[in-house]
Amino acid sequence: MLVPLDANGRINEAELRRFINWLIEKGVHGLYPNGSTGEFTRLTEDERRVIARITCEEARGRVPVLAGAAEANVKETIAACELYHTYGARAVAIVSPIYYRLSPESVYTYFREIALNSPIDVTLYNIPLFASPIDLNTIRRLSELAKIVGIKDSSGDVAFMMRMIAAIRPNRPDFTFMTGWDCVLIPMLLAGANGGTNAASNVVPELMRKLYDLFQARQLDDAMKLQHRILELFDLMLNPFEFPDGFRAGAEMRGFNFGLPRQPQSEAQKADRAALKSTLQCLLSETGFVDAPAAGCAPRTGNVQQDKLEQLVHEVMESLRAKGML
Amino acid sequence: MLVPLDANGRINEAELRRFINWLIEKGVHGLYPNGSTGEFTRLTEDERRVIARITCEEARGRVPVLAGAAEANVKETIAACELYHTYGARAVAIVSPIYYRLSPESVYTYFREIALNSPIDVTLYNIPLFASPIDLNTIRRLSELAKIVGIKDSSGDVAFMMRMIAAIRPNRPDFTFMTGWDCVLIPMLLAGANGGTNAASNVVPELMRKLYDLFQARQLDDAMKLQHRILELFDLMLNPFEFPDGFRAGAEMRGFNFGLPRQPQSEAQKADRAALKSTLQCLLSETGFVDAPAAGCAPRTGNVQQDKLEQLVHEVMESLRAKGML
Amino acid sequence: MLVPLDANGRINEAELRRFINWLIEKGVHGLYPNGSTGEFTRLTEDERRVIARITCEEARGRVPVLAGAAEANVKETIAACELYHTYGARAVAIVSPIYYRLSPESVYTYFREIALNSPIDVTLYNIPLFASPIDLNTIRRLSELAKIVGIKDSSGDVAFMMRMIAAIRPNRPDFTFMTGWDCVLIPMLLAGANGGTNAASNVVPELMRKLYDLFQARQLDDAMKLQHRILELFDLMLNPFEFPDGFRAGAEMRGFNFGLPRQPQSEAQKADRAALKSTLQCLLSETGFVDAPAAGCAPRTGNVQQDKLEQLVHEVMESLRAKGML
Amino acid sequence: MLVPLDANGRINEAELRRFINWLIEKGVHGLYPNGSTGEFTRLTEDERRVIARITCEEARGRVPVLAGAAEANVKETIAACELYHTYGARAVAIVSPIYYRLSPESVYTYFREIALNSPIDVTLYNIPLFASPIDLNTIRRLSELAKIVGIKDSSGDVAFMMRMIAAIRPNRPDFTFMTGWDCVLIPMLLAGANGGTNAASNVVPELMRKLYDLFQARQLDDAMKLQHRILELFDLMLNPFEFPDGFRAGAEMRGFNFGLPRQPQSEAQKADRAALKSTLQCLLSETGFVDAPAAGCAPRTGNVQQDKLEQLVHEVMESLRAKGML
Repeated sequence: MLVPLDANGRINEAELRRFINWLIEKGVHGLYPNGSTGEFTRLTEDERRVIARITCEEARGRVPVLAGAAEANVKETIAACELYHTYGARAVAIVSPIYYRLSPESVYTYFREIALNSPIDVTLYNIPLFASPIDLNTIRRLSELAKIVGIKDSSGDVAFMMRMIAAIRPNRPDFTFMTGWDCVLIPMLLAGANGGTNAASNVVPELMRKLYDLFQARQLDDAMKLQHRILELFDLMLNPFEFPDGFRAGAEMRGFNFGLPRQPQSEAQKADRAALKSTLQCLLSETGFVDAPAAGCAPRTGNVQQDKLEQLVHEVMESLRAKGML
Repeated sequence: MLVPLDANGRINEAELRRFINWLIEKGVHGLYPNGSTGEFTRLTEDERRVIARITCEEARGRVPVLAGAAEANVKETIAACELYHTYGARAVAIVSPIYYRLSPESVYTYFREIALNSPIDVTLYNIPLFASPIDLNTIRRLSELAKIVGIKDSSGDVAFMMRMIAAIRPNRPDFTFMTGWDCVLIPMLLAGANGGTNAASNVVPELMRKLYDLFQARQLDDAMKLQHRILELFDLMLNPFEFPDGFRAGAEMRGFNFGLPRQPQSEAQKADRAALKSTLQCLLSETGFVDAPAAGCAPRTGNVQQDKLEQLVHEVMESLRAKGML
Repeated sequence: MLVPLDANGRINEAELRRFINWLIEKGVHGLYPNGSTGEFTRLTEDERRVIARITCEEARGRVPVLAGAAEANVKETIAACELYHTYGARAVAIVSPIYYRLSPESVYTYFREIALNSPIDVTLYNIPLFASPIDLNTIRRLSELAKIVGIKDSSGDVAFMMRMIAAIRPNRPDFTFMTGWDCVLIPMLLAGANGGTNAASNVVPELMRKLYDLFQARQLDDAMKLQHRILELFDLMLNPFEFPDGFRAGAEMRGFNFGLPRQPQSEAQKADRAALKSTLQCLLSETGFVDAPAAGCAPRTGNVQQDKLEQLVHEVMESLRAKGML
Repeated sequence: MLVPLDANGRINEAELRRFINWLIEKGVHGLYPNGSTGEFTRLTEDERRVIARITCEEARGRVPVLAGAAEANVKETIAACELYHTYGARAVAIVSPIYYRLSPESVYTYFREIALNSPIDVTLYNIPLFASPIDLNTIRRLSELAKIVGIKDSSGDVAFMMRMIAAIRPNRPDFTFMTGWDCVLIPMLLAGANGGTNAASNVVPELMRKLYDLFQARQLDDAMKLQHRILELFDLMLNPFEFPDGFRAGAEMRGFNFGLPRQPQSEAQKADRAALKSTLQCLLSETGFVDAPAAGCAPRTGNVQQDKLEQLVHEVMESLRAKGML
């Protein structure tokens, strides 16, 4: 879940509550505040608590809440687990230790200490791009602890998902495997994953839900067609923007105000963001949930930089045409 | 394709011919000599030619041959393309430049030069672990050249496969996408790949063919069950051995003599290989194509080091038991 | 600077004050609280403030304080800059954004925003192993801002230090270059660096100071002899332990109580730590500042795992000998 | 050593002999054919032999020859060792296995096999950027073999050089340590290295020799001033060009014809090379060995892309001025 901020960069509580309700109405199966998409490392400890509390309140039992509970150290993390338990979260998700790159033994010891002291079920969060990787053997060892009930894996590696499932499910049939790599949700589900916790669900929750439903109905050809569209959308929101700003830009088009971002942007970046947002709007308009820009859309080539340029040229030409200058 | 050597490390022509025939009988759709599994960089130029020639001869038109033709430089590579064309190869596969890590522009220029001068169709070979990566935009640019007809991608990245297909197939519907990552063949086929050029086909060609056929028949649940077994086998042959020696060890169990390897092994490595081979034999015996070791098999845990140890203990115990000492 | 904790893992204020005084008495040129060695990411916001305050208080103007001021986001970081300014810090050090890997443009924008709003001089902190790298061009651009007065670089790359100095010093002769890679302090000083902010100064501040003084006196042969001893010590504290626990173990031998670490340790890790600490004690005893273990020291081989083993064997043998069993 | 080619890309024997003589006259202490700068992987086996033979012949005992002898496999490599021994080479240099990334144990076994069968002294060549890394423990183990007499390390890591020397020199005082990272030759010599095998010696052999002599005379301030100029030159030849083409471009300015490169260049790359070469000529003209371009030189900024642009603008302006158009 993204976090709407106000014009001063503070949490916009009213918009957050509206956003949560919208997500539930659009069919998400659960809510995951304080993840990477929620920029948990850019929030203060107090802010993370406020967001977890609001999410649990606003969910009102309609969907379960998986609350990101990683704090500065084990003691603080356990305190967050206790608090989020009282908020009514279904489970917490805890990212592997950040900043320092820890050995597998230390990653194990870290999660073990938390699992033995948490009153609430714990989900591991593996995101090797940003945090200490949790390797296969460590996950297997951790799956022996009753309080650890699942993993969110954002490696994007389908073979790794298969290895995890093969290693753990025989002994823990209840263990939940989720992928954070939106663009291969269907291959991951085919590989045996239970579901996804996906940034794209902030922008097109209906489509992510439909993707899941198509797989459940074993309509794989249709599912893969939709998966290809999600890939295109995901790539445009992920790469040319600084994560998770592309997803903020997308969610803004769905009618939400995300306010001033925490990571400052230069004037050049703001101009670039506007141009990319226009390309993104064209792409999103094909989903039917978003209007095309007033000036219309240039044909896309699949090359982001070129698409951005062509859309810019297109809009300038349209503007000149509108003024009768062409 | 692996290359059988003799006790002195020279190409074992008779065994190579026997191996080729066996592969074809077992159902492979094509042959790919002088790839990474064929240790092309450990062969001399003359040896690579001999292997390409023998493969084309022995195939006798029953299946197409995709011959690895990368040589020291563009001129030598084009000469190999010309020669393999006269041998009757269907196409050549050319790995991206090795050793130096070239820029995308130089990778493009390298392949362009070859494509413009080759009399035979060219397949790109992307293996970023070992050679200069061929990025998406470079592949797209190269797909505009008529002589370039496909790509073998060994990145193992399903999303990358989807991106390639989305970028190229609209303009080149005939372009062929193959994966070199055996353990995710089904997800890759689902993503739109045409097939695989897989090291495991040297060991269980029947199973790799069956995997493909199950996908074509859209029996995805059975396909994924088999895919999981292939993953287990692939991981055991890939990781604990030095590539491609695990695949050599596997093919030896199918009744072929692979001789003295090119990369020397220490006594400790030879002992370790014997222990791993025993674990591998147990795994392969489950396919029904290979007998279990005489002493039987210990239960597997999925942890290679532990499995190796347990199998060793098992065999020692059985041996003592056989001698009436237990 | 390391942070002494108590038996419950809370900041041990009395020991921290004693440690600060000891460091100053032993000759350090300055104090740097809330750096990587100070485990700033494992502290709460409040704890970081307490440590900065105590350090400034206890320094009492005897040496300047460079206070780590990185917080969750730009706004919080600027607030810390303001606060540490009132504490009397000479400057702040700010690590490049953590967790997310930002583009050079975003790294620039981040530091620019801080520099334009900080009342206190700012030092960049580049540690590409753990945080978004600050590349050469970004450092050059940032050096154009008056409030940015230096960089601490922990890349350990001497050529990079030379490149930074060549690019910046002509326009900013006052810009300060410090290395965080203790084991090459002399090569870095030779390359033009102004000094070091080194973890080893927590353990052997006298030797790090002497290393600097030998260079200033241009006694390079003696300096390099000492540098080689520092390298040996640094490597033993850095690699086999989880950072910065090896430095904690070393400082404990100088008579300080560092208490319960923030990152939990398994029983196996605790046993390993004890064995490594014994090897470390032997190495430190050669400096003359630390007594050898009662049982004496085995000869060292330079191979950490082997040294640890030999020291263990040595201690067991001595123990048996002491009991008259050998 | 670079290899002059002719207009068709074949070895230009006359120019090669002239180049060798020039290098010796300019003061190099030895010759190293068939290294990375010599593009050994882009040569055929026969070509590598020709180059080694010509180098040994032309050296005529004036300086020792360290001949790169790595071939496709151990057997071929030993054959090259035997041949180069008969040519009169002082020793061979053998790069760690390429393409496949081997384990330390396999790297050890590879070099051990060669060392036990080579009639000529062997130097290890560690270049982790391009080939399997040779780690510290493996180097130490290999240094126990009498035939292995030294290492060329191109990691550029001064601390690693210190670690190697500390681990090996006590037992092998005769072991030779050479750095392949031109821009930190002085720090490496200070760290204890014996010398360098440097690509820049193809372009400014006098300066590289002078750098070494200044260190031997312990004129470290002058040495570091020169080292900074070498860094600037090295960076310009290394990064914006595709290695080793920048060094080819530099050597061309010293009066040699390097002919058609093995790696083809696009028209855009050729134009870019011409622009970079002009910037390089300006930099080289400051050494006094090369004339400035006829149109003169723009001031340099240290930013390669900007320098290239400013030099281009400068040349266009001068050209217009010369034609009286400005």
